[in-house]
Amino acid sequence: MTEQLEADVAIVGAGLAGLVAARRLAAAGLHPVVVEARERVGGRLLNEEIGEGKVVEVGGQWIGPTQERIAALADELGVATFPTFAAGRDVMVMDGKRTTYSEFARVRPELLRDLSRAVSPLALIDFEQARARLDRMARQVPLEAPWEAPKARLWDGQTFATWVRRNLRTAAGRTLFELVTEAVWAAEPADVSLLHVLFYTRSGSGFNSLVGTEGGAQQDRFHGGSQRLALLMAEQLGGERVRLGCPVRRIEHGGGRVVLQAGDGEGAIALRARRAIVAIPPTLAGRIDYDPILPALRDQLTQRMPQGSVIKTMAIYDEPFWRREGLSGQGTSDVGPARVVFDNSPPDGSPGVLLGFLEGRFARHWATRPAAERRQAILAGHARLFGPRAAEPTGFVERIWADEEWTRGCYGCLMTTGGWTEYGRALREPIGRLHWAGAETATVWNGYMDGAVRSGERTAAEVGAAVEAE
Amino acid sequence: MTEQLEADVAIVGAGLAGLVAARRLAAAGLHPVVVEARERVGGRLLNEEIGEGKVVEVGGQWIGPTQERIAALADELGVATFPTFAAGRDVMVMDGKRTTYSEFARVRPELLRDLSRAVSPLALIDFEQARARLDRMARQVPLEAPWEAPKARLWDGQTFATWVRRNLRTAAGRTLFELVTEAVWAAEPADVSLLHVLFYTRSGSGFNSLVGTEGGAQQDRFHGGSQRLALLMAEQLGGERVRLGCPVRRIEHGGGRVVLQAGDGEGAIALRARRAIVAIPPTLAGRIDYDPILPALRDQLTQRMPQGSVIKTMAIYDEPFWRREGLSGQGTSDVGPARVVFDNSPPDGSPGVLLGFLEGRFARHWATRPAAERRQAILAGHARLFGPRAAEPTGFVERIWADEEWTRGCYGCLMTTGGWTEYGRALREPIGRLHWAGAETATVWNGYMDGAVRSGERTAAEVGAAVEAE
Repeated sequence: MTEQLEADVAIVGAGLAGLVAARRLAAAGLHPVVVEARERVGGRLLNEEIGEGKVVEVGGQWIGPTQERIAALADELGVATFPTFAAGRDVMVMDGKRTTYSEFARVRPELLRDLSRAVSPLALIDFEQARARLDRMARQVPLEAPWEAPKARLWDGQTFATWVRRNLRTAAGRTLFELVTEAVWAAEPADVSLLHVLFYTRSGSGFNSLVGTEGGAQQDRFHGGSQRLALLMAEQLGGERVRLGCPVRRIEHGGGRVVLQAGDGEGAIALRARRAIVAIPPTLAGRIDYDPILPALRDQLTQRMPQGSVIKTMAIYDEPFWRREGLSGQGTSDVGPARVVFDNSPPDGSPGVLLGFLEGRFARHWATRPAAERRQAILAGHARLFGPRAAEPTGFVERIWADEEWTRGCYGCLMTTGGWTEYGRALREPIGRLHWAGAETATVWNGYMDGAVRSGERTAAEVGAAVEAE
Repeated sequence: MTEQLEADVAIVGAGLAGLVAARRLAAAGLHPVVVEARERVGGRLLNEEIGEGKVVEVGGQWIGPTQERIAALADELGVATFPTFAAGRDVMVMDGKRTTYSEFARVRPELLRDLSRAVSPLALIDFEQARARLDRMARQVPLEAPWEAPKARLWDGQTFATWVRRNLRTAAGRTLFELVTEAVWAAEPADVSLLHVLFYTRSGSGFNSLVGTEGGAQQDRFHGGSQRLALLMAEQLGGERVRLGCPVRRIEHGGGRVVLQAGDGEGAIALRARRAIVAIPPTLAGRIDYDPILPALRDQLTQRMPQGSVIKTMAIYDEPFWRREGLSGQGTSDVGPARVVFDNSPPDGSPGVLLGFLEGRFARHWATRPAAERRQAILAGHARLFGPRAAEPTGFVERIWADEEWTRGCYGCLMTTGGWTEYGRALREPIGRLHWAGAETATVWNGYMDGAVRSGERTAAEVGAAVEAE
């Protein structure tokens, strides 16, 4: 028997966006019910315990400057932050050569000197010139309407790969841009529209902000893990307002109400509400059965926003041994397979944790290999960066996000070429009683936890205003 | 109550691919059941009656040289063809200038002379040089494995728009390439990977074959309309083997059998079979709920194959008045909104029918306008090509394929950049007991009716061999 439920607002997805929307609506005196496919809340945020009450995050984890809404939420919930460990020198392996250096994001004489053991000064200047050019272009993209950028059609008609080929003159400079693309979008430069890269760069306060640790998007971490934000919100909302294990299969929205059909068999529910907020990645939102069907522009938008590809891995050691060698634990390697590595140890530095990202084509390739072979290759890569001890962890944790039924990729959905200019208008625009949330819908910090929070706040405001007007 | 059905092979989709597969399997002594979401068969083939037993096709309609499998099928079914009307001069409107000319596909002195009233000879030479270059590149793409082309990554990393910008020097040459892209893919050059364009060009026997009428993909038509092929196959299979109005929502394929859950409420069925053939467009195949979920590579492939956009329109006149003026009824216009026009009159030339295609961004824009406004704009475009009589049809028929729940675009799914090289391997490869058919999976005449037929034949052979081996 299908359980019949009533709410003011039905929310699809108990990630940050959906929970923030529910929290706001509840605070405004409305009755929201969040329906979540998984048996847990958090969406792309997920803590994993590594013993002694400590956790690593196998999903999104960082918070940085200008991410004001997630910061405010953490404050409200009493979740404190601590700095990402970044003291010491970073490591780079390029073309078989290893070097350490004191900072990555800016071209300074000492950085040139240090890095030039692995990358030619010409390549570094090449990289920096392209970085500056990209930032200048990004500032011309209106965040609310990227399709109104002066050169929108030109930029949306080409891939980022095309731009990189034409604007970087050195092979190493191109490789660095490829590494950045993988690190920021979990995608290859070929996968994504130049206009999307520009929009996203501006949305995240600029190139150095996106890639930076101190002063950038990777600056700080949450005590107890980022998923705590979702867990605490869900706890405060209560089990009646957050229904787990209920994949939404169908949304009827033709009449004066919406009805969500969710769950299977004995767990099936039908949730009637005045409005709905769909707070899941666009590619998955497109798989729900809508009655009436959605306008073509919206449907085809969701056909054009594929997820990126990432495998997030944690190698766990008795201690962060690299720190004693004056290394930050941050590493970059052209061979990978984890091409970007961070020190992800708990705040007290025990145990030591090296976080390795396999992204874009590396994630795609290695996801199809046996787990033992993948682990061995990743650890061999860590050893190239941090020495042989890195090959002998005491534990190893990984998460292949494309294998997750209710995500099917990470970090988020990208815009393919032509997407923004032809379909961008359908990204946030409500359709009758349906509203669209999620990190992919944010104008500021699109794709980040902060963007997810902002989208939850925006849709709660939209719905609140609409309900009041009725 | 859910009706329980048994079959040897369950087939999703009663388009050409699914019906051909069923027909083949039945001929081999197996029991197939086709489950179709719509209340009709034919998928993207659809006849519409225009009186006196005559029809126009608002979906796929043409057959041309080297399309051997659809030709063989038509022979088997006793469906005859007739030539597309192409006698007389074509019309072109470019930059506000109108001209008529005797052939489009090749650069010949008299064509240069004729067309140069609307397009400069320089632009025509520019176009022809680019056409030749494209054909040369296309011949380097292996149809079974486009990702193995020598320059696969380079070509898959750029849009067709990028290639057109860099390889055509005249504005008019670029416009002509844009028109061709819309006509062949119902997409803009920005929407599609260069590698896909090259693959598709080779798959369809070359550029001139794709765009041509005589000697090309638009050469002939079917008496009684192309949908007859599907209708006749369904009739021969019988109602027990073709279940209409049953959208497949879920496919369980983990055990020694597959189970399709389809239909809703009183029409719900559960179909158990040894194997399943999914014969619907990839983007829609990705929306089915699979248990177990599909491998990441397959799922992410379906996130990256969006449908094109087309509105197919027919303006009906007492007679094909243009023929008396020595015109073929074929027209091309840079302003459109129907930028490509054909004489689509029944074989006896009565009534007169002008077929107008709105494609790519023209389809997207005009689909959101009121029907009367759209019709008026289309007829005004026809009048620019064929004179004021074209503005006064006795009837008007249109089909917006992106508004169709069980297609959500047309002509077919495209590969976005990066798609072939990173995901192409997952396009046809069976996953356990699941096989993949549909025009998008064809190596020869991909995207065409002929490709659909070939994919049905291929999957029937795959399934036949697998069943025999069990």
